[in-house]
Amino acid sequence: MISKILVANRGEIAIRVMRACRELGINTVAVYSDADKEAFFTKYADEAYLLGPAPASLSYLNMEKIIEIAKQCGAEAIHPGYGFLSENAAFARACDHAKITFIGPPARVLEVTGNKIAAREEAVKAGVPVVPGTGECPADFCQLQDDLGEIGYPLIVKPAGGGGGIGMVIARSDSDLQRALTLSPQMAKKSFGVASVYIEKYIERPRHIEFQILADTQGNVVHLGERECSIQRFHSKVIEESPSTALTPELRAEMGNQAVRLARAIKYVGAGTVEFIYSEGRYYFLEVNARIQVEHPVTEMVTGIDLVKEQINIAAGLSLSVKQEDIKPNGWAIECRINAENPIKNFMPSPGTLTGYRSPGGVGIRVDSGVYNGYTIPDCYHPMISKLVVWGRDRNECILRMRRALYEYIILGVDTNIVLHKAIMENPRFVSGALDTDFIAREVGLLADMQRIKERDKSLAERLSTIFYRPKP
Amino acid sequence: MISKILVANRGEIAIRVMRACRELGINTVAVYSDADKEAFFTKYADEAYLLGPAPASLSYLNMEKIIEIAKQCGAEAIHPGYGFLSENAAFARACDHAKITFIGPPARVLEVTGNKIAAREEAVKAGVPVVPGTGECPADFCQLQDDLGEIGYPLIVKPAGGGGGIGMVIARSDSDLQRALTLSPQMAKKSFGVASVYIEKYIERPRHIEFQILADTQGNVVHLGERECSIQRFHSKVIEESPSTALTPELRAEMGNQAVRLARAIKYVGAGTVEFIYSEGRYYFLEVNARIQVEHPVTEMVTGIDLVKEQINIAAGLSLSVKQEDIKPNGWAIECRINAENPIKNFMPSPGTLTGYRSPGGVGIRVDSGVYNGYTIPDCYHPMISKLVVWGRDRNECILRMRRALYEYIILGVDTNIVLHKAIMENPRFVSGALDTDFIAREVGLLADMQRIKERDKSLAERLSTIFYRPKP
Repeated sequence: MISKILVANRGEIAIRVMRACRELGINTVAVYSDADKEAFFTKYADEAYLLGPAPASLSYLNMEKIIEIAKQCGAEAIHPGYGFLSENAAFARACDHAKITFIGPPARVLEVTGNKIAAREEAVKAGVPVVPGTGECPADFCQLQDDLGEIGYPLIVKPAGGGGGIGMVIARSDSDLQRALTLSPQMAKKSFGVASVYIEKYIERPRHIEFQILADTQGNVVHLGERECSIQRFHSKVIEESPSTALTPELRAEMGNQAVRLARAIKYVGAGTVEFIYSEGRYYFLEVNARIQVEHPVTEMVTGIDLVKEQINIAAGLSLSVKQEDIKPNGWAIECRINAENPIKNFMPSPGTLTGYRSPGGVGIRVDSGVYNGYTIPDCYHPMISKLVVWGRDRNECILRMRRALYEYIILGVDTNIVLHKAIMENPRFVSGALDTDFIAREVGLLADMQRIKERDKSLAERLSTIFYRPKP
Repeated sequence: MISKILVANRGEIAIRVMRACRELGINTVAVYSDADKEAFFTKYADEAYLLGPAPASLSYLNMEKIIEIAKQCGAEAIHPGYGFLSENAAFARACDHAKITFIGPPARVLEVTGNKIAAREEAVKAGVPVVPGTGECPADFCQLQDDLGEIGYPLIVKPAGGGGGIGMVIARSDSDLQRALTLSPQMAKKSFGVASVYIEKYIERPRHIEFQILADTQGNVVHLGERECSIQRFHSKVIEESPSTALTPELRAEMGNQAVRLARAIKYVGAGTVEFIYSEGRYYFLEVNARIQVEHPVTEMVTGIDLVKEQINIAAGLSLSVKQEDIKPNGWAIECRINAENPIKNFMPSPGTLTGYRSPGGVGIRVDSGVYNGYTIPDCYHPMISKLVVWGRDRNECILRMRRALYEYIILGVDTNIVLHKAIMENPRFVSGALDTDFIAREVGLLADMQRIKERDKSLAERLSTIFYRPKP
C-alpha cells in the first residue's frame, strides 16, 4: 500500500487530493512555489517543500525537482491533480524510472490521449462516433479537399497537441480554411510544441457532454454517468452539472457504453473523462481527458463515489470499489466555478487579499477551495477562489439551492463572478435546460441582469461589519 | 401559499430555517435579542426586529411581542426552530388566534406530546412497547408500591412536563425512591411549572434510538429511518448518526412502523421524532419530540429529503413530497456538535470572539453554523458553534471522513470540544459501534486521549498566521 503521497499541484485540487489521502490514512507532501508559501494547501500537508519561483516552468512543471523531493521525503507516489504535469507522458515515464507511482494513466495511454488525432483514430477503430473530418492535415490543399470530401463548411482546424480552445480556428470558406491552415499550426507549435493539426466539421452551438470513467489494473471499467459542461466562456467551463437535461436513460446508457468501450480499447487505467459533443440527438467523440477534472465533484455528489480515493486505490493496485450495476446516480448536482474576476468588466482578473470570507453551508452544499480569510490570491495563476457544488433531489431544487448558496457566499476584498452565476441561475433559458456552448455569448441580456442583481443583492456582506479581516498591526 | 415567515429562534437553527425559506422563495424575518444584534441570522434575514434583552423570557420566549412583530411585518407564519417556543401549546394557540400559521404540530398534539404521562398512555393504547412503569405517581407510597408491582429496582422518577434530563432521579432502593419522590417533583415544578412525575424501570446503559417522522394534513405519515443518539454527556447529545449499528433491517421496519402508528394515533401533523430506548434486542417508547431536532441533518444526509422544507410545505397544506416506499436511506451520516467549551476542563463554556475561523469543506461535508470570522459568541446562550455533519458510503468511510474534517476545522479565539470528537472518532469502542448512553462517562481513557491528541494536532491552525481576525482599529 501507499503510505505517503506527494501532491504536485496547488490550490483547491491540492487540498482535494490531500483530503482523500487523509481519509485513506496516507501522509501528504505539498510542493509549492514562492507565490504559494501562505497557501492553504501548503499548510494543510503533513510536509511541504519549496519548488522555486512562481512561473510554472520553474516550479509546478519542474519534473526533476518534484521527483527529487519525492525521493528525498520518501513519497511512494505522486498525484498530479489537473493541468500542469497531469497528462504529461514524459513525467509519467520519469516517475516510473524513479520507481515512484504516478497516480494517473500509464505513459503509453497518455501518449494516445495527448494526441487528439491518435485518440480520434482509436475512437473510429472502437466504433465510437466521431465528428466527420480528417486525420492529420496533409500539406497539400488539393489533397486535403479530397480528404474532406462532402463534409462542407463550416469546418474547424484544431491542434493535435492540446486543448482549451487554443489554436482552434473556424473556417466558413476556402479562403478562411487556407488562412486557418497557416494560423492554427503556428499557434499549436507555440503553445504545445507540435504544429500538427486536423480538421473537423464545425458543429454550431453543440452541447458539451462528458462521461466519467474509472478503470483499474484488473481490467474492470465502469462509467459514472455524464456531466453537462455547456456553460462556457471562451472554451473555459463556467458551470457544470450532472446529469444532463439532454439525455434520455437510453442515450445515457449508450454513450456510457461507448465511453467504456473506448477506454477498454486503449487499455485505459485510472480516472478519466470521455468528452462528446452533442447536437440534435446525435453525439460525437471529442477527446479523452486523462486526469481528474475540475468538475469531478458533480459526479461525486450524484453517485456518492469518491473519485480521488478511487484514483489512489487504482494506483495501489486495488480493484474498483463499484460495479457498473451498483452505480445509480441520485438527484442532481451543479457546480459554479467561483473566480476572482469581474464579469461586468470583461472578466478582468481580480487577485488580492480576501478581507472577508464566509463560504455557504447547510443542506446540499459542498465547497472546494484553497483559500481562507486573510489569504492573498496571487496574480500569477488562474484566479479560482472555489468550486461551489450543490445537490438537490431534482434540477429545480438544485437551482433554487444554488441561488440560496450564492446569496450567502461572502467574499470581500476582490471582485468575483458570483453575480454572473446568479444571473445564469435566474436565466429562463438556463432554467429550462436548453443549453449549448454559446449560451453565455448569446444571452446578451446577462450583462444588464448582472448589473440589476448587483444592485439588488449588495446588502448581506455590507450588513456584516465584523467579518472583515485586518492584517496584523 | 406562504410568502413571509418569521423565525422565532436564533443561531444555527434560525439560519437553517431561513435557508429553506430562501429555497422556497419565501421572505424571512428575524427577531433577535440585544445579545444577537451582530449574529449571522440577524443579518441573513430579509428583515430583522429587536425583541428585547438577552434573557429568553424577555426575548425568544416573549410570545406577545413575537406575534405582534409577525402581524406588523405581514408574516403569515412563524417557525419556532427547536427549544424556546417550539413545543409550547399556548404559543401555537396564540398563533392560531392571531391567524398566523404555527409551523409545527397543532396545539392539541403539543398538549399530548408535552405531557410525558399522556404520551406514554397514547403509546400503550397504540400498542407501542413502553418501559414498565406507572402513570402519574400517586401521593400514597403504599399505593405506588402496588402500582409498581413486580417491576423492581432500579427505577427512575421523571417529570411529566419536560426533558433534557432535568429532574430525573434514579432510585435503587425504597429509601432512594422516597427521596426521589420529594426531589423530582420539586425540580419539575421549578423547571417546567408542573410538579407531576411518573416512574419507569431504569434501564442501565441503553442506546437512544429515535425515528424521524413526517405527517401532513391529508393524513399521510412516513418515517425516515432512525438516528442513533447514544453519545451523550449529562443527557445532552454530543454525536448522532444515521442509521444505527444496532438495528437490523427487520427491526428498523418494525420500529419505524410503530413510530408511524403512534403518530397516526395522536393525529400528528408536521415533522417529529419518536424516541425509543433500546437494550438487549428490545425497544421501548420514550417520548415524542414535536419539533425539528438539532440532529435532523443526519437524516437529511442519508435520505436526501429537506426536512425543514417539508415542515413548511406541510404547514402550507401541501402533501408530503415522498411516499414510504420511495424513502431509501443511502450511506451513513454522523453529526458532531461543535461547542465553545473545554472538554478537558470539565466542559467549561468558552464564549468569546472567533479570532480565526475556517470551516471544513470538500466531499461529504456539511456545516450548519451561525458564526463567522470575528463573531463574538455570547455568554448568555448555549455555546454551540456549529454542527459538523459528514456523509460516507458506509460507517467506516464516514468516520474516516469525520476525522479528516475535524483535522481541518480551524476555530481560534475560544476553546472547543473538537478534541473530544477526535478522541471519540479514534476510540475503538466507538469505531466498533458498541454504543450506549454511558459511553462518555465510562470511557475513562478519553481524557488522556484528548491530551495526547491536543499535543499531536496543534500544528494546522498555528501554521496559518494570516487567518487571524483583527478588530477594526
